Amino acid sequence: MKKNNPFLESFQNTKQQIVGHGFRSIQILKEALNELDDNEESDIYGSGNFIENFQEKMANFLGKESAVFFPSGTMAQQIALRIWCDQKGIKKVAYHPLSHLEIHEEDGLKVLHSIQPILLADKNRMIELEDVLAIDEDISCLLLELPQREIGGQLPTYETLEAISSFCREKGIKLHLDGARLMEILPYYKKTAAEVCSLFDSVYLSFYKGIGGVAGAILAGEKGFINESKVWKRRHGGDLISLYPYIVSANYYFDKRENKMEQYYKNAVELAELFNNCHSIHTIPHTPVSNMFHIHYHAPLEKVSAILIAIHKETGIGITSNLRSIDEEVCYSEISIGDQYSKISKENLHKVLKLLNESMLAL
Amino acid sequence: MKKNNPFLESFQNTKQQIVGHGFRSIQILKEALNELDDNEESDIYGSGNFIENFQEKMANFLGKESAVFFPSGTMAQQIALRIWCDQKGIKKVAYHPLSHLEIHEEDGLKVLHSIQPILLADKNRMIELEDVLAIDEDISCLLLELPQREIGGQLPTYETLEAISSFCREKGIKLHLDGARLMEILPYYKKTAAEVCSLFDSVYLSFYKGIGGVAGAILAGEKGFINESKVWKRRHGGDLISLYPYIVSANYYFDKRENKMEQYYKNAVELAELFNNCHSIHTIPHTPVSNMFHIHYHAPLEKVSAILIAIHKETGIGITSNLRSIDEEVCYSEISIGDQYSKISKENLHKVLKLLNESMLAL
Repeated sequence: MKKNNPFLESFQNTKQQIVGHGFRSIQILKEALNELDDNEESDIYGSGNFIENFQEKMANFLGKESAVFFPSGTMAQQIALRIWCDQKGIKKVAYHPLSHLEIHEEDGLKVLHSIQPILLADKNRMIELEDVLAIDEDISCLLLELPQREIGGQLPTYETLEAISSFCREKGIKLHLDGARLMEILPYYKKTAAEVCSLFDSVYLSFYKGIGGVAGAILAGEKGFINESKVWKRRHGGDLISLYPYIVSANYYFDKRENKMEQYYKNAVELAELFNNCHSIHTIPHTPVSNMFHIHYHAPLEKVSAILIAIHKETGIGITSNLRSIDEEVCYSEISIGDQYSKISKENLHKVLKLLNESMLAL
Repeated sequence: MKKNNPFLESFQNTKQQIVGHGFRSIQILKEALNELDDNEESDIYGSGNFIENFQEKMANFLGKESAVFFPSGTMAQQIALRIWCDQKGIKKVAYHPLSHLEIHEEDGLKVLHSIQPILLADKNRMIELEDVLAIDEDISCLLLELPQREIGGQLPTYETLEAISSFCREKGIKLHLDGARLMEILPYYKKTAAEVCSLFDSVYLSFYKGIGGVAGAILAGEKGFINESKVWKRRHGGDLISLYPYIVSANYYFDKRENKMEQYYKNAVELAELFNNCHSIHTIPHTPVSNMFHIHYHAPLEKVSAILIAIHKETGIGITSNLRSIDEEVCYSEISIGDQYSKISKENLHKVLKLLNESMLAL
């Protein structure tokens, strides 16, 4: 949905929101910067305290030898796959049909790196061990996205992950984690980040999803791999003279929200149940395994949009800022829980859901 | 020169500096942000007031139809050359042997875009019309860097520029301006940015050289070209969810320093003359044509380093933070004039130069 449409506007005019950490105003950056002395020195082309200390902190957190800060995950992941492909001499990787690389990056991986992706599994479900066992071509790397965002944030069982990891190690296939939302799945798996990452050769983590920073990403792995990624970072034009605006905010909100992921996850489970009790609505997954899920409305987008606008206006509480058609009969919203959810009283929350249920019944 | 060396430390401990706008502390960003209301909304993937308004402002300033903000010039320029090559179907471009693309980008242009550069002119001088006329292969684009940074910031005559531009138009060769320091050369040429840019098909401008922002760049040209560059920006991983920290600072310092370039230029001319009066020192160019020049010291780096450290300590005034060997007999520093120069009294300035002259004489 584009800006300046009535639906998005109605969301932006709400006083409280069920989803997210609040609007992305410049206050987010100001708050992080205000913690610091004015004279703190900028990083310069990858050197300096801000970037070096944060990279070390993230390497430790992820249980990897080394880490490097990137302006974007798009850049970090293409580069990770390129390094693994160059190392093996095979320009093929495997990932899910709805991987960020496949649908959101204008084919950068193919056009800039001449890497051919092999799409695993049906697009409506997770990659399972069987899909990996069935790969009948030589590949350099398998990328797993945890959780799989475009299908509501689903996860394989941890046993499946372990089995895929073992298989890849045996076969000399590098395993890369698209961990944009890694923090958000740790409570469900009941694992530390380092435990999950130990199954992977390389890991990417984003700082503006559950963590809620301004932008930026970390790529982590062995020292040689990370050193090579810095050369590619420069080639891509990502070795900026100063990345501190992103690093400072990543660090600040990481510290602030690292321990709130359990709460977001529980909130998501609670909220999904409320949606599932509404007429002609179900969530995917039925029971969330992270802070996110999708709401599927069994009604045309125009009608659901009108319902949501009315609820936003009547209650002053925003349900979602996004609404997309699946077909003429069904549309969906992506829900990500953050700090805002717990600011809404149970009474108001139930009022919103009651209105939604009644409106869907009345269609 | 790396950090934590005595020479750089001696510079960083000075109270005043002849060069630059002051140290790159986070205060630079804070100052720009503090002008704005906390609730100002972030840009989102290339949309929003911050980015759209600034792009329009820069397109107007450069006299081009359209402009797009990039996190780095490295990314912007590779992409510009790629678009021109794809359009013509010839993956060859021409530029100076000391172009940023050739020596500072880890061969991104070659490795990511398979574009082959043809190096024009001797590395110690500017590209002249004769060099362009002598190109004996089909090329898609000629890149000119104005001023040519790595040789002290030299410029061709404006007539040469016009002649090269006419020739390229006639031959169907696109002309791209590496205008990282475009603002800095306008006073010498006595031209507006739009007048200079009218000779070129595409233009890149940087915001952390003379303008002194945090990072970032603008690429400008015709609408179709700019729209295509946005697709490549996403492929490169440069279409960040939020670029406002760079845009806000670029805009703030552009407004603050747009009209100070004449002063920086005159200061550079004055200062170069003082250096040229010192024993065993000369500047390149002899008379600057922008805010920058190189100081060549006819003595080994170790000895010059010791002299500069002593002057930094004795006077509390920093001459330069960089010093590089050319050979065993000669070393050089890059000088860029900014706001700091005019804060130094003439008396103190002459004291510094007198000490430098005496020390060079005593070698």
